[in-house]
Amino acid sequence: MTRPTPFLETPGPQREPHLLAAIDLGSNSFHLLVAHDLEGRLQVITKRGEKVQLGSGLDEEGRLSDDAIQRALDCLARFAPCLEGVPMDRVRIVGTNALRNAVNSQALIEPAEALLGHPIEIIAGREEARLIYLGVAHDVAETEERRLIVDIGGGSTEYIIGEGFKPLALESLDMGCVSYTRQFFDNGTSGGEINAKRFRQAELSALSELAPIRPRYRALGWQDPIGASGSIKAISAVLAASGKRPEGIIKREGLKALRERLIVCGRLDRVEMAGLKADRANILPAGVAILGAIFEAFELEHMRYSDGALREGVLYDLLKRSAAETPHPAILDKLRKRYGIDGSQGDNVAACARHCLDQVQDSWRIPDEAKQLLWWAAQLHEIGQAISYHRFHRHGQYLLTHSDLSGFSLPQQRAMAFLVRAHRRRFPLQDYQALPDRERRLLGRLARLLRLAAIFHHSRPAASVSAFRLACDENDALQLTLSTELAAQALLIHDLEREIAYQDAAGFRLSVDVANASRLEYS
Amino acid sequence: MTRPTPFLETPGPQREPHLLAAIDLGSNSFHLLVAHDLEGRLQVITKRGEKVQLGSGLDEEGRLSDDAIQRALDCLARFAPCLEGVPMDRVRIVGTNALRNAVNSQALIEPAEALLGHPIEIIAGREEARLIYLGVAHDVAETEERRLIVDIGGGSTEYIIGEGFKPLALESLDMGCVSYTRQFFDNGTSGGEINAKRFRQAELSALSELAPIRPRYRALGWQDPIGASGSIKAISAVLAASGKRPEGIIKREGLKALRERLIVCGRLDRVEMAGLKADRANILPAGVAILGAIFEAFELEHMRYSDGALREGVLYDLLKRSAAETPHPAILDKLRKRYGIDGSQGDNVAACARHCLDQVQDSWRIPDEAKQLLWWAAQLHEIGQAISYHRFHRHGQYLLTHSDLSGFSLPQQRAMAFLVRAHRRRFPLQDYQALPDRERRLLGRLARLLRLAAIFHHSRPAASVSAFRLACDENDALQLTLSTELAAQALLIHDLEREIAYQDAAGFRLSVDVANASRLEYS
Repeated sequence: MTRPTPFLETPGPQREPHLLAAIDLGSNSFHLLVAHDLEGRLQVITKRGEKVQLGSGLDEEGRLSDDAIQRALDCLARFAPCLEGVPMDRVRIVGTNALRNAVNSQALIEPAEALLGHPIEIIAGREEARLIYLGVAHDVAETEERRLIVDIGGGSTEYIIGEGFKPLALESLDMGCVSYTRQFFDNGTSGGEINAKRFRQAELSALSELAPIRPRYRALGWQDPIGASGSIKAISAVLAASGKRPEGIIKREGLKALRERLIVCGRLDRVEMAGLKADRANILPAGVAILGAIFEAFELEHMRYSDGALREGVLYDLLKRSAAETPHPAILDKLRKRYGIDGSQGDNVAACARHCLDQVQDSWRIPDEAKQLLWWAAQLHEIGQAISYHRFHRHGQYLLTHSDLSGFSLPQQRAMAFLVRAHRRRFPLQDYQALPDRERRLLGRLARLLRLAAIFHHSRPAASVSAFRLACDENDALQLTLSTELAAQALLIHDLEREIAYQDAAGFRLSVDVANASRLEYS
Repeated sequence: MTRPTPFLETPGPQREPHLLAAIDLGSNSFHLLVAHDLEGRLQVITKRGEKVQLGSGLDEEGRLSDDAIQRALDCLARFAPCLEGVPMDRVRIVGTNALRNAVNSQALIEPAEALLGHPIEIIAGREEARLIYLGVAHDVAETEERRLIVDIGGGSTEYIIGEGFKPLALESLDMGCVSYTRQFFDNGTSGGEINAKRFRQAELSALSELAPIRPRYRALGWQDPIGASGSIKAISAVLAASGKRPEGIIKREGLKALRERLIVCGRLDRVEMAGLKADRANILPAGVAILGAIFEAFELEHMRYSDGALREGVLYDLLKRSAAETPHPAILDKLRKRYGIDGSQGDNVAACARHCLDQVQDSWRIPDEAKQLLWWAAQLHEIGQAISYHRFHRHGQYLLTHSDLSGFSLPQQRAMAFLVRAHRRRFPLQDYQALPDRERRLLGRLARLLRLAAIFHHSRPAASVSAFRLACDENDALQLTLSTELAAQALLIHDLEREIAYQDAAGFRLSVDVANASRLEYS
């Protein structure tokens, strides 16, 4: 089957328009959620979770083992049939910490995408936090209270403060129940021993990660501490089973008592408790240590459990997208402010790039979603000037690659970074070759359109430029026809001549000729 | 002789305290200027210039030819005796465009530094523009008028708008009389032909570079256009000799007539004119083309020539430095604002780093200037968090490496970038090994001090931390002694234990013990 493009989704035939689906490839568990959209509320159709423990399959060098990859694919093969009938653009599959860190993530992603018939997005930590907040905020009762939400994952833990549906602080820190189990309780030399010293080491490590964000979080403050994730659910369930009610509330002393009980167990393979599922037992001590550190850092007395999570957040985010409430305009605005981008230049180049794209979209079969991508890249093409005018296209590439832009997926960021890198000077063949196979052709084409738009606005004319016609053929050649008025602009002709040479050096053809004015009536 | 450290200068014996010296290693000419400091005004003692044409020694791959390197060293050997008697910290030697672009710049810099006994700083384009402005602003009469200053160099041309001694806009663009001669008039295939088409190509290329900055410059506006540099001096002299007076003023029609005369000459080797020195003849057409483009882009009618230049600016900058009017606090402030850095954390870590340094400065023989460097790096250590919290030390390294920070030299930026990169997590051995030999040991030591300061402030205590003693030995081992109060902070101990492991992995020794409180009376 043809591999899908991560930032592009095209609707397929015979789909059930009200269905939505999310898969979360977590470091501990994979989750599937399929739901009906009941005018903005979700009605769950299918909910499944499997402990794949992908994170424990990461070796010292950050490589996923063949075993772990196989476990993941087996699980996804069981999930795949549940996606049938869901429209292509209503499915979102996200990967988190383990996939962020795996140096060979493609070894899982490529066959997984082929299996599922959908792209998999590796999302950044802050985007994960944003989606978790969305999931939890929809789960808990709507109140005016400020919330602290923590989600202990397999490889990372997310910390969010927010009000209503609005997050005020988002962080994702490197600590998780799978990674901490390996690091502190089952690191080969220890044989799974549980003792007070190991517990304290794990807690101190988490406290050390929390130290830099703690003052800001405490300054923001909260009334309502909420925990999400399987670890917190398991702790809540064990405490409830041991009679420390009310259920769904974790109290400081209950957590402390559980820590003591685990030390008494003495070894990971001896952890057995009422209320605890067997497949959760070996990672419970790490979860208790991280939660203990959270209680200590934020001086919590209690925390309530919420069933909302990343996967719910993903679905609510999909709902918002279809209602066109995407977070992207706000992010663009924030970037523009931070880096002092000239917005009108961005608008002009974006409009001109769209005018270019409109003329070749059909011949090149460019999907609508790519239009959006080109628009964003055009808006941000000057972002690197904040660092230095010299080689600003390279600085823009760095900023868009590494910035934590919650709301954009990592493939979207990578694609924008490439377009900004490629928008001027020599066409960057090395970066072009390094693009994933399935994206290369499309992104190369978009880059060539963006280059033309930037050339048309090189002298920053305030008005839009549209007195040209652009045509393309299947062999990727572009034919630009200028109005006689444009053709009289010596500087534009100079820039276009250089552009022909740049494109030629990259193996692309661009030719420019001049129309008689009457043929360009939209000029 | 021992090679000097670029960001460190120590005063030598038997120097004349009122002397100052600057050498400018330009792409066309090298200049030497030695002057007396007469209470803030300069009295020139020695002024020399030689047409080394370093820029024409750059091949297609950006390598300086052996010939060009030899020409440069021969010239510097003639300059070197003039530096005798000038205090070490009153000499500044700067390299510009050709050295910025040469991939093998070290092949010239290392022997040149040994020859001169002084470090050579490659300065960024915007820093070059700032210094040129300073030189010209001191040369022309002090007026209230807003000035446009252009300086056509061998490889780059600087554009500055300013009032009094304050620059309002600074840019350095890739166009110069040496590089444009090669590109448009003497590119191997053309045999030095001068014709109208080649002139127009050169002018259009310059106009194309100017296009992006033109609107901003024109919006700022100016009353007084001023040209500096040898090219503009030569043009002014030729026009004066041809009777197009007044001398020192270049008018649009005079420039146009000169362009026609050069076309009539027909070839570079036939350019001969009254008022024109023979060694300037072959690069005159490129200079005229660039100046023509400047007149066209900014719609100038006339321009006056100023004798002020980079080398004068360097000396006035040295004077200001000794008067402690450095631009650095303003730059730090600007960076802090742009990247939203928590200033109090910077202050606290900087104070703690200084406290660390004070205790080992004598044993490690750390020069005072390095103290300043550590202070800046500490102030900026969180700058990368603007991009992403994840690996922010790496993002800080990128920002400090690539930002156009006029006022800092490139070696200073590189040193700060290393310190910020190295301030947390694993010690970056690869970056450490990549440092120039003469800087490695010192920067490694500074980095270890900054790491300790960051650890002491990991939990962001608002107060300064000084209840510790730090000692070092010649073998680079550090011995940290904590007060019993500090030793009771479990998180600090945890972080220090991890730090011992990090330093050990990099081949450094750090040991920590606890004093009896009475021994740490300054706690």
